[in-house]
Amino acid sequence: MSAVEAAAAAAARAATTPTTRDERAGWLEALAAALEAHREELVGIAHEETHLSSARLDGEVTRTAAQLRFFSNVIREGGYLEAVVESPDPSLIPPRPDLRRMLRPLGPVAVYTASNFPFAFSVLGNDTASALAAGCPVVVKAHPGHPRLSRRTAELAEAVVPEEWFSLVEGMDAGTELVRHPLVRAAGFTGSVRGGRALFDLAVSRPDPIPFYGELGSINPVVVTRAAAAERAASIASGLVGSFTRDAGQYCTKPGLVFVPEGGGVEEGVRSGLADAPSSRQLTDGMSRAFADGVAAFEAHPGAEVLRADADADASAPTVVLVDAKTFSADPETFLEECFGPVTVVVRYRDEELPGILSRLEPSLTATIHRGADEDVTALAGTLSAVAGRLLFDGWPTGVAIGWAQHHGGSWPSTTASVHTSVGATAIRRWLAPIAYQDAPEHVLPPELRDANPLGIPRRES
Amino acid sequence: MSAVEAAAAAAARAATTPTTRDERAGWLEALAAALEAHREELVGIAHEETHLSSARLDGEVTRTAAQLRFFSNVIREGGYLEAVVESPDPSLIPPRPDLRRMLRPLGPVAVYTASNFPFAFSVLGNDTASALAAGCPVVVKAHPGHPRLSRRTAELAEAVVPEEWFSLVEGMDAGTELVRHPLVRAAGFTGSVRGGRALFDLAVSRPDPIPFYGELGSINPVVVTRAAAAERAASIASGLVGSFTRDAGQYCTKPGLVFVPEGGGVEEGVRSGLADAPSSRQLTDGMSRAFADGVAAFEAHPGAEVLRADADADASAPTVVLVDAKTFSADPETFLEECFGPVTVVVRYRDEELPGILSRLEPSLTATIHRGADEDVTALAGTLSAVAGRLLFDGWPTGVAIGWAQHHGGSWPSTTASVHTSVGATAIRRWLAPIAYQDAPEHVLPPELRDANPLGIPRRES
Repeated sequence: MSAVEAAAAAAARAATTPTTRDERAGWLEALAAALEAHREELVGIAHEETHLSSARLDGEVTRTAAQLRFFSNVIREGGYLEAVVESPDPSLIPPRPDLRRMLRPLGPVAVYTASNFPFAFSVLGNDTASALAAGCPVVVKAHPGHPRLSRRTAELAEAVVPEEWFSLVEGMDAGTELVRHPLVRAAGFTGSVRGGRALFDLAVSRPDPIPFYGELGSINPVVVTRAAAAERAASIASGLVGSFTRDAGQYCTKPGLVFVPEGGGVEEGVRSGLADAPSSRQLTDGMSRAFADGVAAFEAHPGAEVLRADADADASAPTVVLVDAKTFSADPETFLEECFGPVTVVVRYRDEELPGILSRLEPSLTATIHRGADEDVTALAGTLSAVAGRLLFDGWPTGVAIGWAQHHGGSWPSTTASVHTSVGATAIRRWLAPIAYQDAPEHVLPPELRDANPLGIPRRES
Repeated sequence: MSAVEAAAAAAARAATTPTTRDERAGWLEALAAALEAHREELVGIAHEETHLSSARLDGEVTRTAAQLRFFSNVIREGGYLEAVVESPDPSLIPPRPDLRRMLRPLGPVAVYTASNFPFAFSVLGNDTASALAAGCPVVVKAHPGHPRLSRRTAELAEAVVPEEWFSLVEGMDAGTELVRHPLVRAAGFTGSVRGGRALFDLAVSRPDPIPFYGELGSINPVVVTRAAAAERAASIASGLVGSFTRDAGQYCTKPGLVFVPEGGGVEEGVRSGLADAPSSRQLTDGMSRAFADGVAAFEAHPGAEVLRADADADASAPTVVLVDAKTFSADPETFLEECFGPVTVVVRYRDEELPGILSRLEPSLTATIHRGADEDVTALAGTLSAVAGRLLFDGWPTGVAIGWAQHHGGSWPSTTASVHTSVGATAIRRWLAPIAYQDAPEHVLPPELRDANPLGIPRRES
């Protein structure tokens, strides 16, 4: 029996054991505590494997524990169940019986972990947290970029959750076997367009297709208005350099394409700020090569000016690609290509050119506007909201907050399914499907749907 | 330019024009009124094309108008937007900015209409109603079983909704072109597993896959317990005959597989009730042939006893297939095959055989339990809830009520995506995706997310 077969069978057995929201909330809190209790050891392993700084990794452990606790709050509150209790009305056509509806877990979930968040979108990351919260056993496919950390985190998880609720599998073959396994009911993925598309294609070509939630590529456009530049060009420039070089530029929300007003001072600020930007090593050698190839493609373009900071050995140099609006518009494909790592494309525009160049944008996770203090940006916001899942003002898209209103999606290729995404409270909705009870006797109803609402969850009653 | 190209381009233009919930609610109410105002004419055309009775069709017009008005209520109330307003908290890791999230329309939606509901799941049926409610322009692919009715209904629709918000296309080629069209953002379908799978495969193999919501096949198992039979075998038998022969057995919720206790009297009641069951003509000649082929396959099985009522010329005879539990268990595939039309399979069981035969069930839209007045059916309900989207007690699955708690789904093959389904208030969720605003100035926010909540919608604030 393959490791995947064993893991999927175990998960399917676990899925038949009913659990309460309180129990699962307790697991999530214990998982958060286990991460924190082993913080030093885990950060040490992660630093060796990923080259990310210990400070960043330490913060990511904190974030990951916060995510686990956030989902324990989400399920204790119970509103996520979308419970509805509707009384009979025989006068309607057709007549309405007693109908009660809520969400329930889909069954075993496959989680494909990310390279760039070794904690927060990895073994005990947001996909696992939301799936366990939903009541779905999880089989995690480890990322090859941090195998020892994945195994150690999995050991901690197995010591906390009941047997068979959690398994770790490794290797590319296990990954493809997992998404095709008949007992797996849904999958979550964070990674490249190529890898995500391949797994998506397997998920939907099964005899029984399953939902596949992939977070893929994103260019995250930023528009700096002339009024914003006039007010604070220097701070915008330094904020941009800080954001696109943060943790070696390895964020799916990295601002990869920035439109700045010609002569507004932002370009000059970026040029001078780049000199002080830190170089850093990419997560894997393959990613270092991909970054070098991506920068080389920009350099090969005759209209592009490419600036690089100095870099330590083995590190990728922070890089800015400067083009004018005409160059961008003549060949947008080149400059809309996501390049993972510390590089961004800065397009200088004249005011009349902006609507034309923005019409070239493709869907992204985020879009950002830097505006003047009293500037009306209604039209610009309308244009950018059409291409992004999250629209930010006067900030930077890296550093994704956790919360009920958070969201991490946009149309293809930023996600495979913009309907539900992997961040925020509704990430749990990916692992749930409704059931309706018609004229059911009280004793077969889940407590959340009984007349007296004994657990006191928010629900719609009519 | 093809009809699909023109319709998709028109829908995409319409999608860029903002509309308010009040406006769209007004369209839905006007569409309901238009159907009612032309009730007699529409029922006449539908009767000629579908052979369904005028009384049934008249009731279906009432139902369809009720669905349209239901969705106007859903959007006027506004809870479906899932609005969340979350205030900043800089003490968190990562810090939380001002975040506001709500759902927004996906864009042009393709609707593939059903043969068996010429109103309620056709041109102005639940898919169209929910998509327009969501704010998505609609391109309807007409069903070839009722072309004149489709065109006439479309004329009424075009006179009500603003230009370019609604189009009708016809023909199989148009159907495949539509789901592949780059401007179409999602699709809804009600029909066969074969047809739905073909369109699903096109939707997910696009360069940019789109959500495809298909309602496909379902066998809708029913279990009659021994206690229920002891109390009311005759009424259960007559209820069953009424349900599986209703409107020529052409419902996706038709009870197609019924488990009755051996010697409990239900079988005898069905045998005698069958004689009085009405025969009726199928919607199309192709469906009549498919029904005859399906019944022939049951007849060819050596373990099956097949009973037929008398039938008028051109009509399909109400048919019951009787088998014992051993025969069913030895060859479940034969008896789990959905046969559209007035036929059901009755499996007589001894008490000890029930768990074994129920383990053979595949996912369905519904499952039904007939139980004794005080009988504890916890275990049975657990088994059946695992294979069905709606679990009914002491009733019949045909006649699907409209409501906030209603739901019409189950795992593949009953639907392509059990996460959201085509009936009930949440059918609207299929055509929506979230957007989050971060630190947005008040003037760019939709009214539903502004501080003062000027439209007074239900929302989460924290």
